[in-house]
Amino acid sequence: MSIKIYGKNPSVEILQSDKKIFKAFVIENTNQDIVLKLKKKNIEIKPLSKHDFKKQFLGNHQGIVLEIEDYKTINLSEFLNKIDLTNNPLILMLDGITDPHNFGAIIRSAEAGGVKGIIIPKNRSVKITGTVAKVSSGAIEYVDIIEVTNLRNTLDTLKEKGFWTVGTDLNAKKSYREIDVSTPLVLVIGSEGKGISKLIKNNVDYNVKIDMIGKINSLNASVSAGILIFEILRKKL
Amino acid sequence: MSIKIYGKNPSVEILQSDKKIFKAFVIENTNQDIVLKLKKKNIEIKPLSKHDFKKQFLGNHQGIVLEIEDYKTINLSEFLNKIDLTNNPLILMLDGITDPHNFGAIIRSAEAGGVKGIIIPKNRSVKITGTVAKVSSGAIEYVDIIEVTNLRNTLDTLKEKGFWTVGTDLNAKKSYREIDVSTPLVLVIGSEGKGISKLIKNNVDYNVKIDMIGKINSLNASVSAGILIFEILRKKL
Repeated sequence: MSIKIYGKNPSVEILQSDKKIFKAFVIENTNQDIVLKLKKKNIEIKPLSKHDFKKQFLGNHQGIVLEIEDYKTINLSEFLNKIDLTNNPLILMLDGITDPHNFGAIIRSAEAGGVKGIIIPKNRSVKITGTVAKVSSGAIEYVDIIEVTNLRNTLDTLKEKGFWTVGTDLNAKKSYREIDVSTPLVLVIGSEGKGISKLIKNNVDYNVKIDMIGKINSLNASVSAGILIFEILRKKL
Repeated sequence: MSIKIYGKNPSVEILQSDKKIFKAFVIENTNQDIVLKLKKKNIEIKPLSKHDFKKQFLGNHQGIVLEIEDYKTINLSEFLNKIDLTNNPLILMLDGITDPHNFGAIIRSAEAGGVKGIIIPKNRSVKITGTVAKVSSGAIEYVDIIEVTNLRNTLDTLKEKGFWTVGTDLNAKKSYREIDVSTPLVLVIGSEGKGISKLIKNNVDYNVKIDMIGKINSLNASVSAGILIFEILRKKL
């Protein structure tokens, strides 16, 4: 299976990684610097007229699209086998996030904030599309994405392994500033509209809220995730 | 002048505010609950067939579009006249942010985090479009947007008034955790690609970086802004 990555910067990032590139599409006589790098790697290049290119690729492509191998997810036991619990790792669980821009931005914040893995539910969640990879700005290469069939059971498994599980809820009594970072942690991030599901909210060790002082008091899901990830990181540094 | 707001939730938010609504477009026999509220306010409603509606409005409209008065910006002296400096207000300055989604998400975080105003440069910056208002989730109603002709001169004016000016820079020596929140503050947020401009970077009192521990170490502009706003807020609470 393959996915398509649009645009100059994302293409450069892919070229710098070990990612397998099957084929490149370019508007003829554009993106010469990237084309040169592609040629050095013996990658098949398909030059197209501007007209044909635009017919084939919609969106913000900047005249270049790479067809690359898709991003692999791993399962929970593979992940748990390789992670070092003595370092008190932080992992995220996404509950109901469907927007690829939010997913991509969360991966980006996670990578920068030292998050070791991101758990997503099979079937219902977003997949790792070209948009997700692009918005992640290359961070997707460095964070494990763990697909699980059941979030609730996954929480139980992680608790048994020594993780503390923390949900996020606008109505929580505890502040996000009170998260104890001296254990392995799973932080559950919900969708903007609905938050995290009731079943999950009732089965985490505790829930926290981000203290806000405005009238609207709602945050973009990727902004919430960023604030929480960096709050946990700042306590560890 | 007017702007158009797309979608159910944004329409409901507008209806709850004092915003003047000129006209509503709906796909006939849809959005009955919102239509009822519009009728109660004596707002002109234009029902359209699905086909005609879709021809007229592209994007995620959910069958309803409101035409409303546009959002007013204010100038710096109006803003300074009404703000209480004894409360050590936080204001943002956006330097080079052009993406309407980032602008909208920053407004949203600003409102929730108690930011009193957002300074944008005339001419070069994003305008307050329907997308910005929609992404702000209604927060645009409660945060002053201050348009200025020159960011550099504005920094000087604000310094004279007692503000400390803080830039954000990946290469700064000081951590964002060291921001002194016991004075009025201006926080300058740059664009994702370029950061804040050299002229601004050299003219703020000091620059800070967000401590990161990954390999890519770049954040979405609205995520950075959120982390900084809530770091300042948490110190005040």
